[in-house]
Amino acid sequence: MTAAANGPSVDARRVIADLRELERRTGGPGGARRVAWGAQWREARAFVGELLAEIGIEPERDAAGNVWAYLAGEAEPALGVGSHIDSVPGGGWLDGALGVMAGLGVLRGWAGAGAPPPRSLALVDFADEEGARFGRSLLGSSALSGSLDPDGLTDLRDAEGRSLVDALGENGIDPARMSEATARAAGIAAFLELHIEQGPVLEAEGLAVAAVRGCAGVERYRVGFSGQASHAGTTPMDARRDAGLAAAEAALSVERIAAEHGGVGTVGAVSLSPGIATAVAGEAQMVVDLRHPDAPELAAMLAATRAAADAAASERGCEWRSQPVWSIEPIPFDARLVEAATEASRRAGGRSEPLVSGALHDAAEVARVAPTAMMFCASARGLSHAPEEDTDEGDLVRAIEAFGELANGALSSDWPRT
Amino acid sequence: MTAAANGPSVDARRVIADLRELERRTGGPGGARRVAWGAQWREARAFVGELLAEIGIEPERDAAGNVWAYLAGEAEPALGVGSHIDSVPGGGWLDGALGVMAGLGVLRGWAGAGAPPPRSLALVDFADEEGARFGRSLLGSSALSGSLDPDGLTDLRDAEGRSLVDALGENGIDPARMSEATARAAGIAAFLELHIEQGPVLEAEGLAVAAVRGCAGVERYRVGFSGQASHAGTTPMDARRDAGLAAAEAALSVERIAAEHGGVGTVGAVSLSPGIATAVAGEAQMVVDLRHPDAPELAAMLAATRAAADAAASERGCEWRSQPVWSIEPIPFDARLVEAATEASRRAGGRSEPLVSGALHDAAEVARVAPTAMMFCASARGLSHAPEEDTDEGDLVRAIEAFGELANGALSSDWPRT
Repeated sequence: MTAAANGPSVDARRVIADLRELERRTGGPGGARRVAWGAQWREARAFVGELLAEIGIEPERDAAGNVWAYLAGEAEPALGVGSHIDSVPGGGWLDGALGVMAGLGVLRGWAGAGAPPPRSLALVDFADEEGARFGRSLLGSSALSGSLDPDGLTDLRDAEGRSLVDALGENGIDPARMSEATARAAGIAAFLELHIEQGPVLEAEGLAVAAVRGCAGVERYRVGFSGQASHAGTTPMDARRDAGLAAAEAALSVERIAAEHGGVGTVGAVSLSPGIATAVAGEAQMVVDLRHPDAPELAAMLAATRAAADAAASERGCEWRSQPVWSIEPIPFDARLVEAATEASRRAGGRSEPLVSGALHDAAEVARVAPTAMMFCASARGLSHAPEEDTDEGDLVRAIEAFGELANGALSSDWPRT
Repeated sequence: MTAAANGPSVDARRVIADLRELERRTGGPGGARRVAWGAQWREARAFVGELLAEIGIEPERDAAGNVWAYLAGEAEPALGVGSHIDSVPGGGWLDGALGVMAGLGVLRGWAGAGAPPPRSLALVDFADEEGARFGRSLLGSSALSGSLDPDGLTDLRDAEGRSLVDALGENGIDPARMSEATARAAGIAAFLELHIEQGPVLEAEGLAVAAVRGCAGVERYRVGFSGQASHAGTTPMDARRDAGLAAAEAALSVERIAAEHGGVGTVGAVSLSPGIATAVAGEAQMVVDLRHPDAPELAAMLAATRAAADAAASERGCEWRSQPVWSIEPIPFDARLVEAATEASRRAGGRSEPLVSGALHDAAEVARVAPTAMMFCASARGLSHAPEEDTDEGDLVRAIEAFGELANGALSSDWPRT
């Protein structure tokens, strides 16, 4: 695979202008409002449709609600590019939308190039990546990859009690037929996604862009400690069974374990019972979220966390228990594409070693069915899922142009079906 | 002061029977329901009135709602005995009620003795010791001691939004006149209160009874930590400012500091924000409750806790702040009465050294205006404020009889006004 750019460059300023217009239509001071299955999300998609119409492309929608836009090239199957236009409530202007608009920029470049691309291009806007309303993220991309279990959707409801099945119905989607979207996978030779980092690493390094070598695996558990609630004034320190302190000790162990294994570990939710100033906590509940790109290391982190919870509990005469909440194995991206993305990053003055994504992305699902890689651009202050989400405009330009070069290289490559 | 019993002994079995009947009338499987200012509390007081009527005593109520029952003796002012008949919702059968019924047992013994006591006896049932409904504990006893600020009552409301002022009105009490209850203080030579320990020390030592040398002082603060909320997957461990871990570290320091100073320290309430599994906590709030019987030690605990919070915050790049919630200075009891109570405990086979009360009691308020001491009897499993609250019946008998001996000794003593 050649690392040189061989095709039209992406007009990054136009991509940024499209993102600003999207923000004007479906965002504002309170942040993005493109929550999947709602009116503002449909408006965002209608705007993407307008932009596609400008270059003479009519999008199609698959059985899972993913939108596809094809530009015919000299070979099949197509190179997929894209991300998701949906956002969390009060989200940022770049998360998801950057990948869709940058992908659209690739199609726009080739549409105006006077010659077809060496391989067809497929822009995809995946449905409900965020899972913001019903709690099921990567919905559309998992339908594409075949990992979606439609039975698991039946019970999902939003905060107001409305069901996902009803929301799908309002958008003309039949849950029983969503898995038909897997048919599109055969039409994808490879897939590339540009996304903001949503973390602080690139900003801290003063870099605009990086390749991503895969998504970290996640082990998420609810951990409970049971001690004995007792009077804060009358229970001597050596007669206490304080479940809250057992949880505190375990949470600090999670931090140490994550650092030791080179992963990340977080206790973001804790509650004590009875939870009042005048009582030693008899019960403590917390959620532990462990992430690592390497499966054996992730397993070792989980084992060490269990041992630490056990030690923290027994040290204070408490019992402990755990309940799995969610897990996903680490998903490595395609080695050739990661190398090409790293080369594109280097040429753009970006990071010379790929990053690992600690967050999940549609690319993690697509990687199950096609060679896949991602590029990250820097996030100001590492913030996302918030109105403050932003990226320096010069960094955006460098990242969008580097993504375009990566796509052009992938268009010229052979992608034999495995 | 003579340590020998010189007067009628208390009929402890009858006191226990009265407590059982009180439980039958105003308690049950869900626990005691004698919450101050309500119908069940008035029913409990009516039952005390029936028991007083049996021995020919008509109780009086002061301007703060405390009920007084006098048995005339050969000298004035009177020896006060008693506690509070109100309970928390779902409380136990002994907390408060034991002290009222044991005090009533002292009056009953003398009423049937054929001769008046060497000094008048005053049984007092203080109003709203628990503060369970409106959050202001020791209400009636602080009116007696003069430490009640009636202006501080105006804004107090219960969980349903009803005001304490209205509840007082329904019980015929004018908030503006409550401080007139201080007039009763001059009628009290000394005060004795029997109470369950509400802690595990006596049970652990296999003892039934102890003298109490005072109530610990309390420093209670709300402590907040501010870091930076960030994505649990994308924020490297060394780039985090985790307010939850700063709070965890500080809570563990409170435990260590309390043990080092021989006091107690508790973090019973914690909350994280945003408080979700996938976000590093940007904000953490907790309440620290510190108690020690010695004022300089309590001050040292508070200073060490501040230093620990400061260290925990700065170690993780967080800010911290604190806000006082409540504090009370340590209240030592009268040395002569504590010695007499210790002697009574020893004779009953109880503890030979007095305990400190980590909880507050009406006696702490009375101690501001008259020589005061308390006796504790053992609490099963240290539990109180719960339906499971209990004490072995043999222990109750020993404690009630020892309290009667202590009262008889105090009746025979001189209590010059200071």
